[in-house]
Amino acid sequence: MTDQDAVADPEPLGRRERRKIEARRRLLSAARRLIAEQGGEELRIGDITAAADLGFGTFYNYFESKDAIVEAVLADVLASAATAIGSRALEFEDPAETASFSYRRFLRFAHDEPELAAVLTQLVGAEDLFESSLLPYARKTLERGRDSGRFLIDDIELCLTSIAAAAFAAIKGVLSGRIGPDAEFSGAEMMLRGFGVGFDEAREIAHRDLPSLDLRAGA
Amino acid sequence: MTDQDAVADPEPLGRRERRKIEARRRLLSAARRLIAEQGGEELRIGDITAAADLGFGTFYNYFESKDAIVEAVLADVLASAATAIGSRALEFEDPAETASFSYRRFLRFAHDEPELAAVLTQLVGAEDLFESSLLPYARKTLERGRDSGRFLIDDIELCLTSIAAAAFAAIKGVLSGRIGPDAEFSGAEMMLRGFGVGFDEAREIAHRDLPSLDLRAGA
Repeated sequence: MTDQDAVADPEPLGRRERRKIEARRRLLSAARRLIAEQGGEELRIGDITAAADLGFGTFYNYFESKDAIVEAVLADVLASAATAIGSRALEFEDPAETASFSYRRFLRFAHDEPELAAVLTQLVGAEDLFESSLLPYARKTLERGRDSGRFLIDDIELCLTSIAAAAFAAIKGVLSGRIGPDAEFSGAEMMLRGFGVGFDEAREIAHRDLPSLDLRAGA
Repeated sequence: MTDQDAVADPEPLGRRERRKIEARRRLLSAARRLIAEQGGEELRIGDITAAADLGFGTFYNYFESKDAIVEAVLADVLASAATAIGSRALEFEDPAETASFSYRRFLRFAHDEPELAAVLTQLVGAEDLFESSLLPYARKTLERGRDSGRFLIDDIELCLTSIAAAAFAAIKGVLSGRIGPDAEFSGAEMMLRGFGVGFDEAREIAHRDLPSLDLRAGA
């Protein structure tokens, strides 16, 4: 058997790769559970590997540091939330309702997953992570609204950036208690008016009942 | 002379204190000049003390680290800008014009002081610094608008947080080139609509000529 053959043979590599992916998944899942239970401050690598039933040393085959796994957990959580919220939101026919649903649903993240949300808002670079998770869905909604004449938006990029930043800041404000839990209504209303939805209609849409949604559905 | 007397005598302490304040001011001013010229990446403590005509070792009597002086410079710059913009903005009789002027003027910060703005957007915690600098002025404007019936705002805190975060994100977007230089118009228009200003009026106010303003006036 030549070296060439060894490289070409997919079997050993395939098995090793699958094992690595599985171990990484177990570490992430354990870290997520621990963060949700106790927050990120007290998180220890030894606790993660123990909960994942792996040796302490194996951790560094997958993540450089505690911060790296926390960031990966949050990227996963956000990607799941964005997928769940974004897919459901795009089912509404009216882009105004899509936008209102998404904004309000994201604001509730602070209630649904307080520990994860708290870790998220403390993470350096979290805002970019948040923005890039919801960007594809938000962009689609804004473009749909603009193209149909439902929204009056001159600058989609500015609008996306502003809304993502405002929503993220509002989540932080709710977590810190500076902003009350009813903020989702006035925030959605203000956003819809900003998009050019008539005032009475903006208020009505922002106060509609929200369909329930399992945020982990996309996980 | 007893120890008691030495402590009670204000003269020597007064002189020392004045010298310390003056040295700190010189370090800050040198750092600000250097950052504005070359950005924050290349900034060296030795260059700062040389430009301030002070010994290298004295630096640590005033600042813990390079990051600490950069943060202090930016806090100063922001406080000056907020004072200059905020005081001028409050001269407008219409809170909608105050808000539009302030938003647009802050967005131009990215043009007026590109190196300082770039350092600002890279600084950890810069967003909080930005928000707290403009908060007193912004709060006054929003309350004035709400109380006079000019603005339809249910939740002042949410509104402040959202606008500060959106403006800061827009400045970052302009600096990175993701958002075009005309964003100040559509951003101000969107904001005014969000505050409950009628659509035609929001557009007109957002496009008014801006009075000139020296951002360092308050420095």
